[in-house]
Amino acid sequence: MDYGSQALKKHKALQGKIAVTLKDDLGTKDKLSTYYTPGVGAVSSRIAEHPDEARDYTWLGNSVAVVSDGSAVLGLGNIGPKAALPVMEGKCMLFKHFAGIDAVPIVLDVHSADEIVAAVRAIAPSFGGINLEDIAAPICFEVEERLKKELSIPVMHDDQHGTAIVTLAGLINACKVTGKKLANCKIVLVGAGAAGVAIAKLLYEYAQPQIIVIDSKGIISHDRQDLNDEKKELLHFAKGQVASGTLNDALKNADIFIGVSKPGLLTADLIKAMAPKPIVFAMANPVPEIMPEEARKAGVAVMATGRSDFPNQVNNALAFPGIFRGALDNRITKITDAHKIVAAEVIAGLVANPTAEQIIPSVIDDRLAPAVARVII
Amino acid sequence: MDYGSQALKKHKALQGKIAVTLKDDLGTKDKLSTYYTPGVGAVSSRIAEHPDEARDYTWLGNSVAVVSDGSAVLGLGNIGPKAALPVMEGKCMLFKHFAGIDAVPIVLDVHSADEIVAAVRAIAPSFGGINLEDIAAPICFEVEERLKKELSIPVMHDDQHGTAIVTLAGLINACKVTGKKLANCKIVLVGAGAAGVAIAKLLYEYAQPQIIVIDSKGIISHDRQDLNDEKKELLHFAKGQVASGTLNDALKNADIFIGVSKPGLLTADLIKAMAPKPIVFAMANPVPEIMPEEARKAGVAVMATGRSDFPNQVNNALAFPGIFRGALDNRITKITDAHKIVAAEVIAGLVANPTAEQIIPSVIDDRLAPAVARVII
Repeated sequence: MDYGSQALKKHKALQGKIAVTLKDDLGTKDKLSTYYTPGVGAVSSRIAEHPDEARDYTWLGNSVAVVSDGSAVLGLGNIGPKAALPVMEGKCMLFKHFAGIDAVPIVLDVHSADEIVAAVRAIAPSFGGINLEDIAAPICFEVEERLKKELSIPVMHDDQHGTAIVTLAGLINACKVTGKKLANCKIVLVGAGAAGVAIAKLLYEYAQPQIIVIDSKGIISHDRQDLNDEKKELLHFAKGQVASGTLNDALKNADIFIGVSKPGLLTADLIKAMAPKPIVFAMANPVPEIMPEEARKAGVAVMATGRSDFPNQVNNALAFPGIFRGALDNRITKITDAHKIVAAEVIAGLVANPTAEQIIPSVIDDRLAPAVARVII
Repeated sequence: MDYGSQALKKHKALQGKIAVTLKDDLGTKDKLSTYYTPGVGAVSSRIAEHPDEARDYTWLGNSVAVVSDGSAVLGLGNIGPKAALPVMEGKCMLFKHFAGIDAVPIVLDVHSADEIVAAVRAIAPSFGGINLEDIAAPICFEVEERLKKELSIPVMHDDQHGTAIVTLAGLINACKVTGKKLANCKIVLVGAGAAGVAIAKLLYEYAQPQIIVIDSKGIISHDRQDLNDEKKELLHFAKGQVASGTLNDALKNADIFIGVSKPGLLTADLIKAMAPKPIVFAMANPVPEIMPEEARKAGVAVMATGRSDFPNQVNNALAFPGIFRGALDNRITKITDAHKIVAAEVIAGLVANPTAEQIIPSVIDDRLAPAVARVII
């Protein structure tokens, strides 16, 4: 199906995908006086005296801002805030549909870490949580870290952690299917942007496997002179002095390939050089690093992609609705690595009997958000 | 009725007064692929190439941010962003109820003009218009002026202009009732905050009456040494050298008293010193400068207040929904003095036969927003 032209038609017909509604009607002067002046004055006075009660009287207990500067949107790159707005509205739809959360798209006309942090900090009292979205690396790391430190509401950059959580969930089940132990696996991860860095960190936190990360210049190795701080941190996960080289060098005897990079990067020959029962997560969007059929022919044991038209879709929407639902309901102000790991375990656990064709639940499995929310405590 | 306790009860039960809804359901994978990835990519690409089409594909044609730093909320003063949130949610309800506009409360944790301007500029691409609300004078003047200059979407500080528009509407009809000509009136205006300054400017723009403005230190006169730039501008409206003095001095032979100040400021004796058929707009909230019954006994010809339980309520909600509805529909990027004047004339015109008891339409008159919107062109 040509989703692009269908999307253009539908978006134009609807003129936006979300709307604001009232929780009670305003049809009488009495209602006006209760919800607006003079009645609302008593509510504001109450909150002024008891700031911790704000969420009992406002939408703070159920609202999230979906914030982007439009610098790294889907496969489209740096298209700016206005062009990013349809994606953010879509994300707000997912928040409501999957978790009942009132989410508002906030696209920013500023792009430095300082300015993004300042803008989000300024508007933070308006919302119960902040979902950062489609902000380019490496700025996204600094922005998220500073906001987590400075704000007392949950902040999560979904491109990093949503992807990492679902990848970990998928790998937990892929290991079950192949009989591998994640801690003993050699993992090759291609792509050191927002998602790649977060995946590497979470997998290492979970099981300390050996992870060799590759960026556009090759293996992130100890002899590279061009590494920024984020990339230097990744060296630690290689568990030992790792030498420069290419994907070919790295993949020899690897158990797991994880791609958040570009189409066609992985070939059948490269898969054949991997260890027995290779696991391939080819998550480049919309065209994966290798197509599932070709990978299967090359002997892959378990395969996942980012696409909904193949089995095993690694989709952030499996994680973020439940994460924020839980954080809001349970008044969690920091989403920690422990939260992410337990969320991944819960998601993996929803597949009762993992097989090569199903290691990840369907995004429309309605057990997902409640199950994840319950463990964000 | 005790609206305060009613409001506390209702706000706690609802946990916020507004919610986000979807314009179409997301129940199938097909819908997900149309409204989110991969379909939405085509919409973002289209907007990246044709930025002027953004409002055809997003909620930009129908969304407004209600922005406050909580520094001058209702009669409560500087209570901060969180305590201001229920008021802003209430304002969002009015936007939806009266004009079908999707409004979002944005309360800011910053308070200098530079920081407020920076925050609003940063989030501006997310919305079709900006309604500034409850920001203290004199910062509100600079904030609005700079944002109007820098943004290409409509920006209006409602405490200033909403109040000014409805005051002018009321005075147009009060003059009809009393046979006065506004241009020939002597007006005494007490209160030189956001609303007072805007009222003075709009009345003068409309008819050049003589307006003597009084602040907490007395008459704003040529011999005052303590006047900031906004207040110096007001001197011009006095039409001649005006000497320092008190409300008593100013009110002698005045045709119109306008109060946006504090309870009990006006007395029966002072009204008796005014010109024949005095007009009194006592708009301090919730307790007016003089109660209507006392004013009537003192011989007032036409009386208005800010309250819904007396006749002739000067209520911003008569103006702002139609102003923004018109600006959004007619793609007006600057709301000008001409717009405000024609809006006031339209509002006044909705009272077919003005009497002392009715110079202003009821806020629930559903002809209001469409009639005002039609003239914002």
